[in-house]
Amino acid sequence: MTLTLTPLVDIPLVKPGDSLAQIILLALEHTEIVLQDGDILVIAQKIVSKAEGRLVNLESVIPTERAFDLAEKTQKDPRFVELVLQESRSVLRYRPGTLIVEHRQGFVCANAGIDHSNVRGEGGAPEDWVLLLPENADESARRLRAELQSATQTGSLGVLIIDSHGRAWRMGTVGAAIGLAGLPGLVDLRGKSDLFGYQLRVTQVAAADELAAAASLIMGQAAEGQPVVHVRGFPFTLREGNLSELIRPIDMDLFR
Amino acid sequence: MTLTLTPLVDIPLVKPGDSLAQIILLALEHTEIVLQDGDILVIAQKIVSKAEGRLVNLESVIPTERAFDLAEKTQKDPRFVELVLQESRSVLRYRPGTLIVEHRQGFVCANAGIDHSNVRGEGGAPEDWVLLLPENADESARRLRAELQSATQTGSLGVLIIDSHGRAWRMGTVGAAIGLAGLPGLVDLRGKSDLFGYQLRVTQVAAADELAAAASLIMGQAAEGQPVVHVRGFPFTLREGNLSELIRPIDMDLFR
Repeated sequence: MTLTLTPLVDIPLVKPGDSLAQIILLALEHTEIVLQDGDILVIAQKIVSKAEGRLVNLESVIPTERAFDLAEKTQKDPRFVELVLQESRSVLRYRPGTLIVEHRQGFVCANAGIDHSNVRGEGGAPEDWVLLLPENADESARRLRAELQSATQTGSLGVLIIDSHGRAWRMGTVGAAIGLAGLPGLVDLRGKSDLFGYQLRVTQVAAADELAAAASLIMGQAAEGQPVVHVRGFPFTLREGNLSELIRPIDMDLFR
Repeated sequence: MTLTLTPLVDIPLVKPGDSLAQIILLALEHTEIVLQDGDILVIAQKIVSKAEGRLVNLESVIPTERAFDLAEKTQKDPRFVELVLQESRSVLRYRPGTLIVEHRQGFVCANAGIDHSNVRGEGGAPEDWVLLLPENADESARRLRAELQSATQTGSLGVLIIDSHGRAWRMGTVGAAIGLAGLPGLVDLRGKSDLFGYQLRVTQVAAADELAAAASLIMGQAAEGQPVVHVRGFPFTLREGNLSELIRPIDMDLFR
């Protein structure tokens, strides 16, 4: 069965308070896609965050002493570092230009996912606006899924919210799941047999992350051009899922 | 533009000495796909390794003292550990059940990619056969690409060889590139402008890894069922590429 990923056309610039469900439903029409049970919508975190009003102006941020210290070590704006710390559980690594943290929501990423690009708020200096990740991306995905299912009379859609993450050991960013609803994060194939009847051993597949990477490939990067991707042909059974499936418990993580 | 990924049907069990190009050309026919310039074929390392005869019987392996030591610490077969060490540049982490190394070819993975499942050689105890990764997966990809282009009169195909890799911080495996020809590993968007005219900063996209993850999603895991995936609609310009683009230099890696 073929897996198809289609970016939705005509997604406008998203503003705080916009209904993403309405925007997506209209864009589906323009792209001439009728949602079916089993379809998945993959959404760039940036438009979720904007719709949820997660814009912050750095002028409103008062850095703590810890933020000043870390700002000096990373050569970043102390107000930006303060926001990163507020959004994080712990700092994993830093050096000039780089700050890797464990986000409140459990995943590891640079700068707690806070971004400068493509961001403008109302008033203040344009370059002082930044965008935080959604408050709770699983919850955002669940809400959006409920709205889309209700509007389209479908019963089993998936919604996946993604961001671009750097990796240990490898160059470049890849799309990664930060929130999901209605699809599995991990697919556990342990216990299934291989071609010769042996039981497979290492067979927990990070299906939501693989789909995030796939969708990221065609979102483009400049990057509100194509922030929603429609997926048909996802090969695993849809079910309730959440981000925590994909987070490696600290005591199983050799690279903290 | 839609990205489509289609697993090829009727790929037989691959044996040492088989021509993968011939197998793929026949499977393309059965799947009713005519290759076009810009298409990419994603191939599971396992069938490349088998065609190249990378089967080893553990009975033929004599462990060094270092292998015995590490075998005890990881609770693995010393002969298996010996092969892992022979295939590796360095050991990153180990503990009972886990052995993470830098492979000779530069990427970081568990057990140097050596696998037990779906592997049988001629003679000996069936469970003693293991399969090493291709000797040089970039070279394997280049060779296969040349054969496929020649047979199909196309001038710009891509060939991507992938394996399933675990990650730091996150659960589950994802498809990752281990060899490539005719497509970019990294796509560098630095210098491009965002929607408001600002220059983008973090914009090296690991396009080959994102495609590897996408294809892995539909290969299934039990896993010689669908080891070749045809891709149409890859959104970046094809060019010469190689694995080294995707390997983070050690001095830029905070997680060694």
